[in-house]
Amino acid sequence: MQLVSIDEITDAATRIAGVAVRTPLLASPWPGLWLKPEGLQPIGAFKIRGAMTAMSRLAPDVRSRGVIAHSSGNHAQAVAYAARMFGVDAHIVIPENAPARKIEATRALGATVELVPVERRFSRPAELVAETGKAMIAPFDDRNVISGQGTIGLEIAADFTGPLTTVLVPISGGGLISGIAAALAALRPDVKVIGVEPELAGDAADSFRSGERKAWAPADTARTIADGLRTFSVGELPWEHIRNQVHDIITVSEDEIIDATRRLAFEARLVAEPSGAVPVAAWLHHRSRLPDGNAVAVVSGGNIDPDVFRMVLGA
Amino acid sequence: MQLVSIDEITDAATRIAGVAVRTPLLASPWPGLWLKPEGLQPIGAFKIRGAMTAMSRLAPDVRSRGVIAHSSGNHAQAVAYAARMFGVDAHIVIPENAPARKIEATRALGATVELVPVERRFSRPAELVAETGKAMIAPFDDRNVISGQGTIGLEIAADFTGPLTTVLVPISGGGLISGIAAALAALRPDVKVIGVEPELAGDAADSFRSGERKAWAPADTARTIADGLRTFSVGELPWEHIRNQVHDIITVSEDEIIDATRRLAFEARLVAEPSGAVPVAAWLHHRSRLPDGNAVAVVSGGNIDPDVFRMVLGA
Repeated sequence: MQLVSIDEITDAATRIAGVAVRTPLLASPWPGLWLKPEGLQPIGAFKIRGAMTAMSRLAPDVRSRGVIAHSSGNHAQAVAYAARMFGVDAHIVIPENAPARKIEATRALGATVELVPVERRFSRPAELVAETGKAMIAPFDDRNVISGQGTIGLEIAADFTGPLTTVLVPISGGGLISGIAAALAALRPDVKVIGVEPELAGDAADSFRSGERKAWAPADTARTIADGLRTFSVGELPWEHIRNQVHDIITVSEDEIIDATRRLAFEARLVAEPSGAVPVAAWLHHRSRLPDGNAVAVVSGGNIDPDVFRMVLGA
Repeated sequence: MQLVSIDEITDAATRIAGVAVRTPLLASPWPGLWLKPEGLQPIGAFKIRGAMTAMSRLAPDVRSRGVIAHSSGNHAQAVAYAARMFGVDAHIVIPENAPARKIEATRALGATVELVPVERRFSRPAELVAETGKAMIAPFDDRNVISGQGTIGLEIAADFTGPLTTVLVPISGGGLISGIAAALAALRPDVKVIGVEPELAGDAADSFRSGERKAWAPADTARTIADGLRTFSVGELPWEHIRNQVHDIITVSEDEIIDATRRLAFEARLVAEPSGAVPVAAWLHHRSRLPDGNAVAVVSGGNIDPDVFRMVLGA
C-alpha cells in the first residue's frame, strides 16, 4: 500500500485554501510547547481539511450527484460544510445514539441526515452508494482525506522556524496523524511524530506495541470522555503510516484529559474538546516519555458539549 | 494633532512580525459576522501589538535603560512581554486593588511590579520617569501604541476579500479603535468603524454624542463586568481619531455582554473576556443600529477570571 506523498499534500493545500483556516501556531503558556488550534476551523475541527480535499478531487460529474458519508461526529459536519461549498447534496448516515447537538449541527449545514440503528452505521452507507452511484467521503481510511489532514504538517513545518523535536497528535481512525507524519517525514524527517490516545480507547497504542493492527470492542472504547477518539481500530492505510512514520504512541488517563481541557481554557484561552486536549495531556503528564526539546500539540477540535465543558471547568 | 498615518501602521506591522500572532479572520457561527480573535496573542490580548511597536521605536540606548508602564490589566503584561523580547527591564506600576491573577502574570513575565495606592497610579510612574530617565510605554494615548494596534486594521483589510460594511471595536482608552480606524480610513474608506462600550462605562459614547471628550467618575465605570473597559475617558489623540474616523458608538448592557461571552464559548469556541465580547454583544443585540452587510467584530482579548468564566457559562 503506497503511503501518501508530499505532492498529494501540497496539492491538498491549494484545494483547501480560502475554506479551511490556516491556523496560527501559538506559543502556549507552558514553555517548550506550541499549540496548533484546529478548533478555529469553520466546523470547529480539522476534519474540514480532509473533507474539502476529498470532495474537490471528485470528478465534477460524480460530485454533482452529491456525496454520502457516515459519522457520529465532526466528519459529518465537515462533509456537510464542504458539500455546501460545492453546492451539492450531502447524505449523512448517523447512528441514532449520536449526540443530538451534532445531528442538529449537521442538519443546520443543509445536509440530509439519515438516522440508523448503530449496527447499520456501515452497511447503510454502503447500500446507498450501490443504489445511487454517489461517492462516499470516508472519514479516515482514504488517501485524499489523509492528504488533506496532512496540510497541518505542512503548516507546522513552514511556521515553526526554530528547532523542533516532537509533534503530538490525537489518534482515532488515524487519518490525522497519517497526514501529519507523511508531511513531516518529507519536510522535517528529524521531527518525531507521536500519537496520543485515551487509555480507555488505546487500540492504536496496543497495535503499535504488538506490531499488528488491533480492534477493541466498541463498548470499551465508548467509555472515554474523548468522544472523537472512540473509533475502535485505525484504518488500513493509516496503519501503514503509523507503522512506518510514527515514532511512539502514548496513552493518557481520563483525569489527565480533563485536566488538560481545563488548563487549555483557563491558561491557554482555548476551547478544546476532550479529544483535542489529549496531546496536551500527554505533554503535561507524561513528559518523561517524550524526547527533550520543543513540541507542538495538535489541538484537533473544539466541539465540546456545554454540560461537559461546565463539568471540566469545575463549575 | 496629527492623526496616525497608514505608513506608521505598515511600519508597525514589520516591527511586530514574529512576536504578535497574525490572527486569522474567522467566520463566526452567525452568518454575516466574522471574528478577529485577539485572545490568541501570547499575552491573551491585542495589547502586545502596541507595546512591541512602541518599544521597538525607542532609541536603543534609551530602551536599554528599561521601560516604565502603569496598568491594572493587559497592557502590563504586554509591556512585560515586549521588554523580555528586547532583554530589558520593565518596571510596572499597578494599583494595589488590581486582580491578584494579573499581578502574578506580570511578575511571571519577569517584570518588576510596584504596587501603589489607587490614587498614586499616575503620579508614581511620572516620578519614576523623572527619577530614572527611563521611557514610559503609555497604554493608549500614544501614536506608536496606536499604530501598533492599527495592524489589526491592516490585517482585516488584507484578509476580508468580499464586501465588508462594518468593523466593531471595543473602546476603553481608545487606542485600539484609533489604530483600526486610521488603517481602514486609508485602505477601505467605505467601511464603517463603530465603537462599542458597556452602558456602565459609556464615556466615549457620551463624548461622541456631545462632540466633546468627557470623563466619567471612575467609581461609575468600575461597575461593569468588562474590566478592560473601565477607563473613564478616552485619550486626547484617540479622541481626535474618534471624532474624525469613527462612525458611531453603541453601548451594551451587562446581560448582553454576559450573553455574548457565553455564546462565543459555546457556539464560536472562543474564550473571550467580557471586554472582548462587547462588539459581539452589539451585533447580537443591536443589529438595527448597525449598517446592513458583513461585519467584523474585534474580540480583543481572552483573559477572563476562572470564576467569572464559570458564572458566565451558567454553571
